[in-house]
Amino acid sequence: MPELRRDPIVGRWVIIATERAHRPSDFQPKRDEPQRGLCPFCPGQEDKTPREVYVTGRSPGAPQNSPGWTVRVVPNRYPALMIEGDLERAAEGIYDRMNGIGAHEVIIETPDHSRPFASLGDAEATEVLFAFKARILDLRNDFRFRYILLFKNHGSPAGATLEHSHSQLIALPVTPRQVQEEIEGARRHFEHRERCIFCDIAMQERRDRSRVIHENEEFLVFAPWAPRSPFETWVLPKRHESNYETEPKERLALCAQAVRTTVRRLDGALGSPPFNFIVHSNPLRDPPSPSYHWHIEIMPALTQVAGFEWGSGFHINPVPPEEAADFLRKVQG
Amino acid sequence: MPELRRDPIVGRWVIIATERAHRPSDFQPKRDEPQRGLCPFCPGQEDKTPREVYVTGRSPGAPQNSPGWTVRVVPNRYPALMIEGDLERAAEGIYDRMNGIGAHEVIIETPDHSRPFASLGDAEATEVLFAFKARILDLRNDFRFRYILLFKNHGSPAGATLEHSHSQLIALPVTPRQVQEEIEGARRHFEHRERCIFCDIAMQERRDRSRVIHENEEFLVFAPWAPRSPFETWVLPKRHESNYETEPKERLALCAQAVRTTVRRLDGALGSPPFNFIVHSNPLRDPPSPSYHWHIEIMPALTQVAGFEWGSGFHINPVPPEEAADFLRKVQG
Repeated sequence: MPELRRDPIVGRWVIIATERAHRPSDFQPKRDEPQRGLCPFCPGQEDKTPREVYVTGRSPGAPQNSPGWTVRVVPNRYPALMIEGDLERAAEGIYDRMNGIGAHEVIIETPDHSRPFASLGDAEATEVLFAFKARILDLRNDFRFRYILLFKNHGSPAGATLEHSHSQLIALPVTPRQVQEEIEGARRHFEHRERCIFCDIAMQERRDRSRVIHENEEFLVFAPWAPRSPFETWVLPKRHESNYETEPKERLALCAQAVRTTVRRLDGALGSPPFNFIVHSNPLRDPPSPSYHWHIEIMPALTQVAGFEWGSGFHINPVPPEEAADFLRKVQG
Repeated sequence: MPELRRDPIVGRWVIIATERAHRPSDFQPKRDEPQRGLCPFCPGQEDKTPREVYVTGRSPGAPQNSPGWTVRVVPNRYPALMIEGDLERAAEGIYDRMNGIGAHEVIIETPDHSRPFASLGDAEATEVLFAFKARILDLRNDFRFRYILLFKNHGSPAGATLEHSHSQLIALPVTPRQVQEEIEGARRHFEHRERCIFCDIAMQERRDRSRVIHENEEFLVFAPWAPRSPFETWVLPKRHESNYETEPKERLALCAQAVRTTVRRLDGALGSPPFNFIVHSNPLRDPPSPSYHWHIEIMPALTQVAGFEWGSGFHINPVPPEEAADFLRKVQG
């Protein structure tokens, strides 16, 4: 059973994923890049994953866990957290621990081994973002979970262990401190000004234009004022909405368009860099919030986290966001 | 002039180091590994660095910036922050910025290009740690600085750009949020219990032993309860002391011994992994603190920061600290 442990000084939780490595020398994630067709995410290999929890595209009447799907969601075969059991929060002297209860799922975005997310068509990419929503709506019924993190690791320097395009979902029994800080920062702004800070940011960015990369009817794509890494890019709904999972499919389609355009621009500008994207949304048990505003953060994995960043939480970014935005505006999206 | 920018939501500062890269495509740190003898940190190459600010070992009367030194501290040739100028804190709409004022120095730990820190002798390693202290005592006279971060990036995956053994110092005009959080977490514990949390941790670890790797008269080396990465190791003074720079040389000698032993054990266990170490100490303008306790955190760079970590601040660590400690106890230190 993996374990959640809290740092007694700063309150940061870590997952001690004991099931993932059994010898101390065995600490690095497995990087066995299977070929197309033999990959566990490819059609015909459905028995190499745990049984699917969500699927689109398969003909009515066709058996579960068989080919013919377009998007398929399965539990992670090497989960960081386990779905079954109780939390059993406990002290160990001055320390806190609980069982590593949670869900860890993989969203297989396409049956085609060689097609990255950016190359998917409008309808295909929309189905991926809709699958995120469907999984949140299902998992929020489990009252042990407080937060669901949806993210994508693309490319091995960004932490991907398989090439076949996929994203991941981790449902957690605690709201991560970093998420809480973002929510509290937004709440403080709201208390002073009675406005959502993300709406204020969108207004200033749309007036200023220097950091705007792209926009469509519903989404603004821009380089944030204080990016942690070169070419960090945010995709923000123009309309105030705190929860990803309440968005209708039409708006998710425009979100998918904004994300794909951004990744294609990053691909064009930087030669298909490894990247992460992270969906930031309101915690499951909080009511819809006037101060918090969901969004997606895209981070190319171009620089390393080194001593200075570990020690300070400060990041050194050699590319001003105005230059990054200007560069990304000029490439094909 | 580099710029410090604050994220308007969470308050995190980033350094936009405009002097380091002039084209957006030029974002990665230069990695020109010069050969021994031609390296700017080697004796005879003193004119390839800015003029030294601290030196040991050179004969009295010998000219500055000439060979014959044992430890040499110079300003970084590609500084993340600039020493000259005023902060000029200013708003840009809802955003905050200030000039990137600070010191960025390199501590060249040995004249010998090929000797890593772990291979230095007792007296040599002590001189390195004493140089850290001397630089803090000098720079704290500059009242623009609020915090000094001392750290080491060893090996290119840990962010080192030159092989010749060195550490770095960055003096900052703000106390980093992450440092502040550690200090506040320790203060909260003290308010409840009137005890230093680090002293409590030391007591529990010494009683429990399962995470202890090594100890000497003055320092305890252990794997923390909630390590962010496999084999994360802390070196903690057994005696309560909030500030690194007030330690006498005899205790720094024992600290150097503890750090070198730890790095040699990591080398033995993991085949000379890349690593970072970070000195955590009380901010420059705070009085000596009964609640904060300086220490060194050593982090082998074995895993990547991926989407989950970026999004949550949660880390997934596949190696329980008890296993890591057990493994490190069994190798030669």
